[in-house]
Amino acid sequence: MRIGIDVGGTTVKIGYIENREIIKSFAIPTKKETLFEDIYNAIKDEKNVEFIGFGLPGTVKNNYIVNLPNIGIKDVDINKEFKIYYPNINILSTNDANAAALGEAIKASKFKSTYFITLGTGVGGGYVYNGSLVNGTHSCAGEVGHSFIDPLHNFKCTCGLSGCLETVSSATGVVRLARTYKDKFKSNIDFDTISCKKVFDAAKENDELGLYVVNLMADYLGIALANIAVTCDVDAFIIGGGVMAAGDFLLDKIKESFKKHAHYGVRETEIYKASLGNLAGMLGAAYLDD
Amino acid sequence: MRIGIDVGGTTVKIGYIENREIIKSFAIPTKKETLFEDIYNAIKDEKNVEFIGFGLPGTVKNNYIVNLPNIGIKDVDINKEFKIYYPNINILSTNDANAAALGEAIKASKFKSTYFITLGTGVGGGYVYNGSLVNGTHSCAGEVGHSFIDPLHNFKCTCGLSGCLETVSSATGVVRLARTYKDKFKSNIDFDTISCKKVFDAAKENDELGLYVVNLMADYLGIALANIAVTCDVDAFIIGGGVMAAGDFLLDKIKESFKKHAHYGVRETEIYKASLGNLAGMLGAAYLDD
Repeated sequence: MRIGIDVGGTTVKIGYIENREIIKSFAIPTKKETLFEDIYNAIKDEKNVEFIGFGLPGTVKNNYIVNLPNIGIKDVDINKEFKIYYPNINILSTNDANAAALGEAIKASKFKSTYFITLGTGVGGGYVYNGSLVNGTHSCAGEVGHSFIDPLHNFKCTCGLSGCLETVSSATGVVRLARTYKDKFKSNIDFDTISCKKVFDAAKENDELGLYVVNLMADYLGIALANIAVTCDVDAFIIGGGVMAAGDFLLDKIKESFKKHAHYGVRETEIYKASLGNLAGMLGAAYLDD
Repeated sequence: MRIGIDVGGTTVKIGYIENREIIKSFAIPTKKETLFEDIYNAIKDEKNVEFIGFGLPGTVKNNYIVNLPNIGIKDVDINKEFKIYYPNINILSTNDANAAALGEAIKASKFKSTYFITLGTGVGGGYVYNGSLVNGTHSCAGEVGHSFIDPLHNFKCTCGLSGCLETVSSATGVVRLARTYKDKFKSNIDFDTISCKKVFDAAKENDELGLYVVNLMADYLGIALANIAVTCDVDAFIIGGGVMAAGDFLLDKIKESFKKHAHYGVRETEIYKASLGNLAGMLGAAYLDD
């Protein structure tokens, strides 16, 4: 039995996994002060645990939490705080996008190498090569949300850089683009209550501004995928996250941009919607030792 | 004993390798009609051959030559043309940039994962992960010369796309940029005899146009490296190829641009000049089975 733990800002999702299937899952509230103690209490009755993996919302290096900004936890050594309960069990951790990347890759098992992109408040990602997660030297593989992709608007990013993919192709990026172009196109979008979803809904009804913005954010995504493709040439891209609730409407636009910008050698790389939703993190976390 | 064979447009370089050192190397002329027969005749007296690897100037997939444009060879199965001489020996092949990438990675053995970029007539590359070459699903890993990096000039690339890194940061790209900006800056460059080297030489003497062009091509390279860094987060970048004859003058500018454009998490990734020159291909080819 493997345990995959997906720590979020409000709940911790815990999955019991056998043979790459989640056989049981449940959630507990995320409490900053007692996070690891609470997790231990929730799983301590479980016998025959062979591995425990964590997906965490922030920067994690070698079982050391550098920063989980949404929870308010910094500089915590998981080996000290949690491994004490399980001295003989292998425990590994990574960030939440990486855990989800591995979970989706396990689900899409016909592919050996995949690149996962998650479109949410920001843009995250994870790279799975030959069935294993690539963490990278600085635990930053998959951070393609911070590739430089938009010198045109060159919007300031939360990371300190400008022009990052995340500034245009995330949920916040979509709203930012809509505000930027609101005087240039006709639109029924109400800017007092604007959200990424409302921009997509408008686009689906051929709202001029909505369509322009969605085409633009999808174009940038296609460019980013095209660049990733010539960099590490994976079998397939898997796109997830809240923004992908827009479904094939968005996926088809991303595919179109990818075909336009990808080198002929990689142009046939497949692009799929993620299929596991918020189960991916638990499943992936449970196989971080793979 | 391993044999690494680096096939070029005019000569075929053959290296005998033991313990990751080239113990002997020699070259034979590249003849389109008798390429593999000539290579066999050159090495057939060698005993105790345990592996033979090829680096080839073009597109190669699973020991099948799709196209070597500079030699004029297309659709040749290396297993049929060459493996017949050595039925019991493992024979593998890749493109020349990949072979050089692996050779340089073997030399820089303190790094486990490296990304090699070669700046020549075009821009090639190769990705080494955990000591092994990443070929990629379509044998296109490393083709970062065709990442979309320059929407500003958006020069047409030989690959059919526009705005590729290769259109601005290769030897031909440097000349193209110089011609593009020749009326905007003062310059002593003679446009009747212009070459990449002459643009660099002018830049080193503070020629306004030369400096502008070199800064620009280095800026694009820094952006490309920054994007590769967040994609697969390697230990180090290794930059080679004829254009790197410009030495630290160019390397320092690439480093400066990288620092400016790289996500804080990967900003300390090291960037080195390639050290093996035209020996890298032979060495790397000899370890394609690694």
